[in-house]
Amino acid sequence: MAPDLVVVSNRGPLSFSRDNAGKLVAGRGAGGLVSILGPAIAGRGATWIASAITDEDREAAAGGDVEAEGFRLRQLVPDDADYRMYYDVIANGTLWFMHHGLYDLPRRPLLNRYWHEAWEGYRRVNHAFAEMVADEAGEGATVLVQDYHLSLLGAELQRLRPDLRAVHFHHTPFCGPTSMRTLPTPIALELLEGLAGFRSCGFHSPRWAAAFEACCRDVLGNAPATFIAPAAADHVDIEKVAASEDCQRELVALDELVGDKRLIVRVDRIELSKNLLRGFSAYDELLRARPDLVGNVVFAALVYPSREQLPEYLAYRQEVESMAQRLNDEWGTDDWQPIYLDTSDFFPRSVAALRRYDVLLVNPVRDGLNLVAKEGAMLNERDGVLALSREAGAWEELQGAALEVNPFDVTGTAEVLATALDMDAGERADRATRLRDAATATTPASWLDAQLAAAR
Amino acid sequence: MAPDLVVVSNRGPLSFSRDNAGKLVAGRGAGGLVSILGPAIAGRGATWIASAITDEDREAAAGGDVEAEGFRLRQLVPDDADYRMYYDVIANGTLWFMHHGLYDLPRRPLLNRYWHEAWEGYRRVNHAFAEMVADEAGEGATVLVQDYHLSLLGAELQRLRPDLRAVHFHHTPFCGPTSMRTLPTPIALELLEGLAGFRSCGFHSPRWAAAFEACCRDVLGNAPATFIAPAAADHVDIEKVAASEDCQRELVALDELVGDKRLIVRVDRIELSKNLLRGFSAYDELLRARPDLVGNVVFAALVYPSREQLPEYLAYRQEVESMAQRLNDEWGTDDWQPIYLDTSDFFPRSVAALRRYDVLLVNPVRDGLNLVAKEGAMLNERDGVLALSREAGAWEELQGAALEVNPFDVTGTAEVLATALDMDAGERADRATRLRDAATATTPASWLDAQLAAAR
Repeated sequence: MAPDLVVVSNRGPLSFSRDNAGKLVAGRGAGGLVSILGPAIAGRGATWIASAITDEDREAAAGGDVEAEGFRLRQLVPDDADYRMYYDVIANGTLWFMHHGLYDLPRRPLLNRYWHEAWEGYRRVNHAFAEMVADEAGEGATVLVQDYHLSLLGAELQRLRPDLRAVHFHHTPFCGPTSMRTLPTPIALELLEGLAGFRSCGFHSPRWAAAFEACCRDVLGNAPATFIAPAAADHVDIEKVAASEDCQRELVALDELVGDKRLIVRVDRIELSKNLLRGFSAYDELLRARPDLVGNVVFAALVYPSREQLPEYLAYRQEVESMAQRLNDEWGTDDWQPIYLDTSDFFPRSVAALRRYDVLLVNPVRDGLNLVAKEGAMLNERDGVLALSREAGAWEELQGAALEVNPFDVTGTAEVLATALDMDAGERADRATRLRDAATATTPASWLDAQLAAAR
Repeated sequence: MAPDLVVVSNRGPLSFSRDNAGKLVAGRGAGGLVSILGPAIAGRGATWIASAITDEDREAAAGGDVEAEGFRLRQLVPDDADYRMYYDVIANGTLWFMHHGLYDLPRRPLLNRYWHEAWEGYRRVNHAFAEMVADEAGEGATVLVQDYHLSLLGAELQRLRPDLRAVHFHHTPFCGPTSMRTLPTPIALELLEGLAGFRSCGFHSPRWAAAFEACCRDVLGNAPATFIAPAAADHVDIEKVAASEDCQRELVALDELVGDKRLIVRVDRIELSKNLLRGFSAYDELLRARPDLVGNVVFAALVYPSREQLPEYLAYRQEVESMAQRLNDEWGTDDWQPIYLDTSDFFPRSVAALRRYDVLLVNPVRDGLNLVAKEGAMLNERDGVLALSREAGAWEELQGAALEVNPFDVTGTAEVLATALDMDAGERADRATRLRDAATATTPASWLDAQLAAAR
């Protein structure tokens, strides 16, 4: 029977690989979206449509749809060249940069003939997704389209299947009209008409919804419907990891490493928007301003490589690693290594660090939400303080209990770190309680419900 | 007698040097502001207050105020270290970047302890200017403060001399609230309160005024008075140069160089906002798309070095020079050099090029006004076409007669160049007439009158 709920995202909930016997097996797909949407969607008889990304995904796709825990997975196998243009050049190389404000405008974006060809690839992959949805969805079905990769589906589905009730959710920030003007006018029009074709567009924060509406008024002359639904980490899921043996082992190792020193933690992808460099600069200023902290604090940066097919990310990783090395050379002694830079991407270790921090630094230059801030608030066992960028979507929900970071202000960030480390036990406990309450006020289920409500 | 009109700008209308006999002599100061404001202000009994910039300026300042053609010059001699912080770090390295959107946000601005010290230098120099104005101006005098270097004077003068009628004019764009948020909140507040202390703040374009108002609403909770007064080139002054022997000689040389080929011209500082690199990329795409133009067109880029005390500008110049060289290597033949890159900053040569172009490319990523676009419209003798960025302030006045350039769209810019070169004589003549009318609709005198009116 054709499903009355279809979820669409670029990256799917399952990722395939071969076991020792050479048999194709499914594991959980990577990424934050899957971790919050996967459990919420289970058991609702939904179909999830996603790209087949790896060779093993494609082999699995060739075998037909996959019935998994609580949903059916249908994979799109895009043309290889189209996928690179759609994913690398437009989604990650253009829309991500535009919505996060990451362009070095004197040089980028460079909308040359290769870029214009890539836009056609983006359009073709969006079109292929729309056709698969149109083929799959039952009469009047609800379609939940996830993220900036799939901006054009609203208009496509309106044309192909006007009976469907499709909504879109942006996990990124949304840029304002000035940034939208970097795109050629017909393409800005196509992008915004693509989104405006949905019944409603969802965002983690009112700021991004307002920016989207302003872009639509500027380019389309009117503002479509929006809704605000900040996502949440899955409490059950993440506490399962926290209770695991792996995590316990990591916590013991971390205890040994840190001893009785104070612990500052960050957990991030190595990502231009995450602001790792200024975080280290702030730590440097902190040590300079506060000799009493020298030798008595450790900064554990659990950061893992990402999107290294884009040269900007390779360069950034090198800068991050060099800077950590330089500060360790400058400040370190035989007994003390001021920064631990861990690029291994081992989730139980990240969870151990979130349980153990005294201060969690989350200082992105811009961020759609930032789940780490919420995960930290849920998991931390030491009344740790959250130093949170006012440019993260999660700021909206957590500002009453977190300390405010202006991510561009290195000196200000150093001062916030000092304030956090100096905070008395009473205020720490009070803030930690309020943080936990705010971080658990929404759940993946309530976030999903908000999307379903917007579709009705 | 104390003057009832005081003009304040960082760079003054006169610049001093020594003649062969070692005597201190005054010449016209550099920069666009002096060229439009100088003639307009002459003969009104005004005092012009400006920084003494060179050693010779300081020597002249030590001799007291200077009576010049139609005004009196009073020079401020700031502390050397303060001046560098005020001018290099804050005015040019921060406010210029912020208002033009030039930051590579993952890395810049880096508001560290050196930057915070520099802000104090900016504050001290602004304060010194305010004290000099307070000392100089007659009771109830009108004070015309020019540009982003002197943003704090509004609040300072309100405190020191509430009888004065002070207005401010921004020659740059003004950034929106998202960019303003890069500054620490107390400093954004100080900056905007500094400006809001003026009776009114003037801009070249309604876009910049609207952005300023949005910033004020966001940070101060209310929007102060603004006025729009696009500046104009001085017709008389520039036609004097056009009629000069120097210019005639340059025109002959240019004729020899270009022959019967088509001529694309740009005249700019080598400046991150001017978008030289994408201009060359567009020319490259033009030649690739239009084999009939290969060998039959010349791109004369009259661009001169600027602000080379900032490393960003040195790097940019190198990229510009490399790119021109690479395209000449790739496309050039024994008979044809596709790009002439001239970095000599000889004004009569620029004027000759403006008289002679078939197409004038003005493609900044953002620009307060852009006087070159207007000068070209006034001077051109061949019904040349103006290809103008929609991100320049002058777009507001010239859009009906210019061709629209999206400065980020290399392919689109190449198409605009092709359209301009292909345009028939009738349309060229019609557009050229309308351009000239639009460019001469305002004059330096009417621009000055708008400021005086705003002060009343």
